[in-house]
Amino acid sequence: MKPDDQTVRIPAGQMRSEFSGILKRAGFSDRKADECAEIFTANSLEGVYSHGVNRFPRFVRNIRDGYIIPDASPSLVHSAGSLEQWNGNLGPGPLNASFATRRATELAEKTGIGLVALANTNHWMRGGTYGWQAARKGYIFIGWTNTEANMPAWGAVDAHLGNNPFVIAVPYNHEAIVLDFAMTQFSYGKMETYKREGKKLPFPGGFNAEGELTDDPGEILLTRRALPIGNWKGSGFSLLLDILATVISGGLSTYEITKSSVEYSVSQVFIAISPNRLNNNSSAGDAIQRIIDDLKSSKPENNEKEIRYPGENVVKIRNENLKSGIPVSREVWKEIEAL
Amino acid sequence: MKPDDQTVRIPAGQMRSEFSGILKRAGFSDRKADECAEIFTANSLEGVYSHGVNRFPRFVRNIRDGYIIPDASPSLVHSAGSLEQWNGNLGPGPLNASFATRRATELAEKTGIGLVALANTNHWMRGGTYGWQAARKGYIFIGWTNTEANMPAWGAVDAHLGNNPFVIAVPYNHEAIVLDFAMTQFSYGKMETYKREGKKLPFPGGFNAEGELTDDPGEILLTRRALPIGNWKGSGFSLLLDILATVISGGLSTYEITKSSVEYSVSQVFIAISPNRLNNNSSAGDAIQRIIDDLKSSKPENNEKEIRYPGENVVKIRNENLKSGIPVSREVWKEIEAL
Repeated sequence: MKPDDQTVRIPAGQMRSEFSGILKRAGFSDRKADECAEIFTANSLEGVYSHGVNRFPRFVRNIRDGYIIPDASPSLVHSAGSLEQWNGNLGPGPLNASFATRRATELAEKTGIGLVALANTNHWMRGGTYGWQAARKGYIFIGWTNTEANMPAWGAVDAHLGNNPFVIAVPYNHEAIVLDFAMTQFSYGKMETYKREGKKLPFPGGFNAEGELTDDPGEILLTRRALPIGNWKGSGFSLLLDILATVISGGLSTYEITKSSVEYSVSQVFIAISPNRLNNNSSAGDAIQRIIDDLKSSKPENNEKEIRYPGENVVKIRNENLKSGIPVSREVWKEIEAL
Repeated sequence: MKPDDQTVRIPAGQMRSEFSGILKRAGFSDRKADECAEIFTANSLEGVYSHGVNRFPRFVRNIRDGYIIPDASPSLVHSAGSLEQWNGNLGPGPLNASFATRRATELAEKTGIGLVALANTNHWMRGGTYGWQAARKGYIFIGWTNTEANMPAWGAVDAHLGNNPFVIAVPYNHEAIVLDFAMTQFSYGKMETYKREGKKLPFPGGFNAEGELTDDPGEILLTRRALPIGNWKGSGFSLLLDILATVISGGLSTYEITKSSVEYSVSQVFIAISPNRLNNNSSAGDAIQRIIDDLKSSKPENNEKEIRYPGENVVKIRNENLKSGIPVSREVWKEIEAL
């Protein structure tokens, strides 16, 4: 996002305290308001504006409309030992997900691996947040969420699958490698941005009215036939992630979530693995370094474009935004100030 | 595969006893020969010829060349409780993987979830095999393997990533839903088949010499630039699956496996989750059925093509092949009879 007269640069500290103040007025305790404000600010600092500052007004509306319950916390439903089932009680998604991530790492510390399944929770915003949280504490993380239906199954024209974001993270070099991807090739938000800017997508992103693959975002926004990654493969992956999240948490499936006009009460899975508990703990960092060194030795198609690992850019973007402020559209910031 | 004068139909029983006899002569114990013959036969019965009968001659060559050690079995390296690290000791991949799957389900029975990581093992042939094994016994399964480098990272022209097949399975309706996919959109084997038959791929499957996406299998076989599913997403997914398999097993990474001219000593992860240990065990089957019913209510693009879940076709193919025999090219069957 380039600064122009439509964009303001908000210092992270100012954004955090603005968010925190709004959340306190919306019924959050001081501690919860600060924790939630921190997550929305960090997502923005790290360049994921769509699930940071740009999403904040909708988050507050969902609170006011009663879909998110500010003072609700997860409660334990059932423990099987290294796997626990929790009820999110419709608490704030980012706080519930942070709790589940922490709890999964505690279980992993005991038995090597821990799984926390969370039913009846809310949108976690950016999945990568929980990968970063776990990996910065030294844990391997695998997690996913289901969503409302927003992607047709392979061969279908109407949406019965979610884009079900999926996250894998590992500690690396005092930071982390964090993969965070949804099952559609491009999100509708991204396609709307391309359309607004009059651009084609860089690769086909869905089907047009004739059932042909297209890179025209406007055509896909009309058909709502977003392309699953890998065609039939991403369609199957989305289905299985939904089945697993639903069965393991005992919560709602994409099908059931979609019955409501507002997306809430989703199901999530958080798996942590503790490298501390591995036989090869002391050499794990070196093993990862060798893999990254080999990746970096790839011959790039374009010599000016470095081959990157997932999350590599995040540290750079964070530092830029810490220095210059977080870019926010003037309109969005006005809306937030009026909340 | 349609029967013609190039194809013979081999009854499953005949195939199984042919395989078993060859394996016994190659140094397998009776029990191991039968178990391994059963897996190769079942893969063929279920339509995965590339990792069944068609792969069998190469499997036997790898034994004779000393890459696969017939009487080796996995040995426990380290237990963290619900996570165990095993050394595959270069035993036969399908037997090691079956062992690890069983062991993961035993751990899951105790603590809800179990993970077995296997270092120094061999090609497991068809990943779905282990999903079916676990799911038919009532378990949820997630597993993957790394491979030699056979896919360029996103933006690169030379292969530094594996296609790292990934499997998710759940019990369903006395059978299973089994998703089994590699990180490339099409395997090289599949692209060779299309080329031999003079056909284009149904969707772009890689890059041509000009760096453009193409559906011409011959062009991709020349550049060796197979397309990762979801472009940069599948590239990142492959990288993370390799990192996790390497770190959690303490075994070799794709980079290290690729140093040898023959693919062996790979690293694998097997995760099982026990629905018996869940609070909602009694309703899990109904929850899956509702998801499948909803999927099936999708509006198909082509009314003659049913929307299917992963693995749905397997039961049909198995029944056909049980009835008519397993289709094998005359040439491959001759090669096997001469082993």
